[in-house]
Order: sequence, then C-alpha cells, then structure tokens
Amino acid sequence: MSVSLFDASVPVFTRGLTILSTLLDKAEAHASETGAALSTYVEARLAPDMLTLAGQVQRASDTAKFGAARLTGLQAPSFADDETTFDQLRERCAKTIAYLSTVAPESYAGSEARTVTFGGGANKWTLRGDRYLFQFALPNFFFHVTTAYDILRHKGVPVGKRDYLGPYEGAGAR
Amino acid sequence: MSVSLFDASVPVFTRGLTILSTLLDKAEAHASETGAALSTYVEARLAPDMLTLAGQVQRASDTAKFGAARLTGLQAPSFADDETTFDQLRERCAKTIAYLSTVAPESYAGSEARTVTFGGGANKWTLRGDRYLFQFALPNFFFHVTTAYDILRHKGVPVGKRDYLGPYEGAGAR
Repeated sequence: MSVSLFDASVPVFTRGLTILSTLLDKAEAHASETGAALSTYVEARLAPDMLTLAGQVQRASDTAKFGAARLTGLQAPSFADDETTFDQLRERCAKTIAYLSTVAPESYAGSEARTVTFGGGANKWTLRGDRYLFQFALPNFFFHVTTAYDILRHKGVPVGKRDYLGPYEGAGAR
Repeated sequence: MSVSLFDASVPVFTRGLTILSTLLDKAEAHASETGAALSTYVEARLAPDMLTLAGQVQRASDTAKFGAARLTGLQAPSFADDETTFDQLRERCAKTIAYLSTVAPESYAGSEARTVTFGGGANKWTLRGDRYLFQFALPNFFFHVTTAYDILRHKGVPVGKRDYLGPYEGAGAR
C-alpha cells in the first residue's frame, strides 16, 4: 500500500492543529473554573531554556506550513509570532489550517524530484523530500504539539491522552 | 510522489527509538557528572497522573512494535514492562529495533485491504491501515518519545532539540 506525500502530511498537520486548538479550549475552560490567569499558561514552559506554550504553538504552525510549502514549491504565509492570548493562539492554528486547505494534492506532483533545504547556519540541511518529511517535519510537528500538551498537563489542566489523539476520521466500530 | 506504509513507519520507528536510546545515554552521562540518582529520572513524570520516563519508553516501544505488527499481520514480541534501570530501558529500545529489523517491506503487500483494531473497552477502534498509521501510530509514537525528552529536560538534563531530531540519513549539504 502506498500513500502520497500529501496524504502523509497535509491531513496530518491539519488534524494535529485542530487537536491543538481544542486543547487550548479545554485549558481556557479549566482556567475559567479555577480562576487561573490564562497568561500563566501562555508563558509556561518545562525548562528555563525551552519554548513557552505560545512558542510551541508557533513552531507547530511553522513546521506545518513549511512542511507543505517546501514539498510543493508553494509560498508559505508569514506570521509575526506575536501571539500573547489564547484567542490569538487559536487564530494562529486556524490561519495555518486555512493555508493548508489551499494546498491541493496535485501540488505534490513532481515532489519526488524535489530536494528541500531548511534550517540555517550550522543547522542548514538539504534532504530529499520524503526524508525531509519523515526525519524532520513529522517528528518536529508532533514534538511541538506534544510539548504544548505536556506544558498544559504540567500546569494541572485536566486533558488526557484521548484529547491529544483526537477523534479518528473514518473510524468503524468502537 | 508516493511512499509505502513500510517507508512511513518502520524506518521512522527505528530512527525514533535509536534517538530515544541516545537521549538516555546523555541523561546517564549527565547524572554521572552531577551525582544525580538515575532512578529519580526513571521514575520522573510531568504530572502525577502521567506515565514515568520508564512508562514513556515502554509505550514508545509498544506503539512501534504494534504499529508494524498490526499493518502486516505479523506477531509482535511480548515485553514485560518491568524495566527499572537505564540499561534495561535501552535494552527495551534495542529489542524493539531488533524486531522491526525483521519486518520486510514485502510484508506490507496487501496492507491496503487490512483494517486494524486496537485499544480496548470504550477505546476500542477499527481503522483502515493508513488511517491507523497517520491518526494513531505516528502521533502516539512521537508523543512518547517527545514526553521522554520533555521529562529529561524538566529534570535539567542538557539535551537539546538537535538531540531529539537526531542525525539525518541521506543528508546532502549542511
């Protein structure tokens, strides 16, 4: 069985960003019950030199948008990384999902001949498209979605693994 | 460009488990410098009702082995989940990698007709093979590798994003 690089990326990113936005909904609902300031969640991190929750959302968004743009040669939208509220972080997810919805499966035609250059400085890399997807884009995307979840769990937000995994599309019996 | 379900899973899991084992090496080296007890890392978690570092490694291993077995109809080895030391956790990664090395690309022939049932009780699901891979196995695998990393970072282990991403195979210029 084979799948296209489109199938292995665009729906995966869209689904992950939708789940990430739902995790933010649940964190906001919890904060409104407990009186916690949402800003303490936005600025929370697991180690002093790790990114905040806002940073995790921004990098998940970037990994998804570049994951699509670099494999197709399309232009990715520019986002300012200036989100400081939950509404803005959800909007960042929504804008990224909206961009992904414009990427057609046909855009991936010829992506087998495409090599991708990413990163910068001492961490500038060139990889064949499929290797870029499976060795960087997917691991990096899930890193940031998971770390956002881990930050919320560490702050006591009552989300669980089912919230991270999200609803299954095309599911048969349960 | 299309890739097989083998390409999208077995090398990805093998690479992730190799990286996970290397993260454990770095944590052990750090502990030997600082005098930290390794058992405090093994038992560390980010929230009282989350899995420990050992649990994260065990679930990453399970997700990988079942990810291969369920898409091919092969039998997955049984592991006892009794690891309490870093050596045992690395051995768990190694045993899982050894199993994955026995799974041939040809085993995936016909996987397009395969539906996968996983989970249990109220969380028992049936999904077509590709959906199982992209909606459960890959997100869940990276969840556990990332959370193992996040636990180590939270404990002050000096690993970084490059350690999580690991060396790129087939890389051109950097």
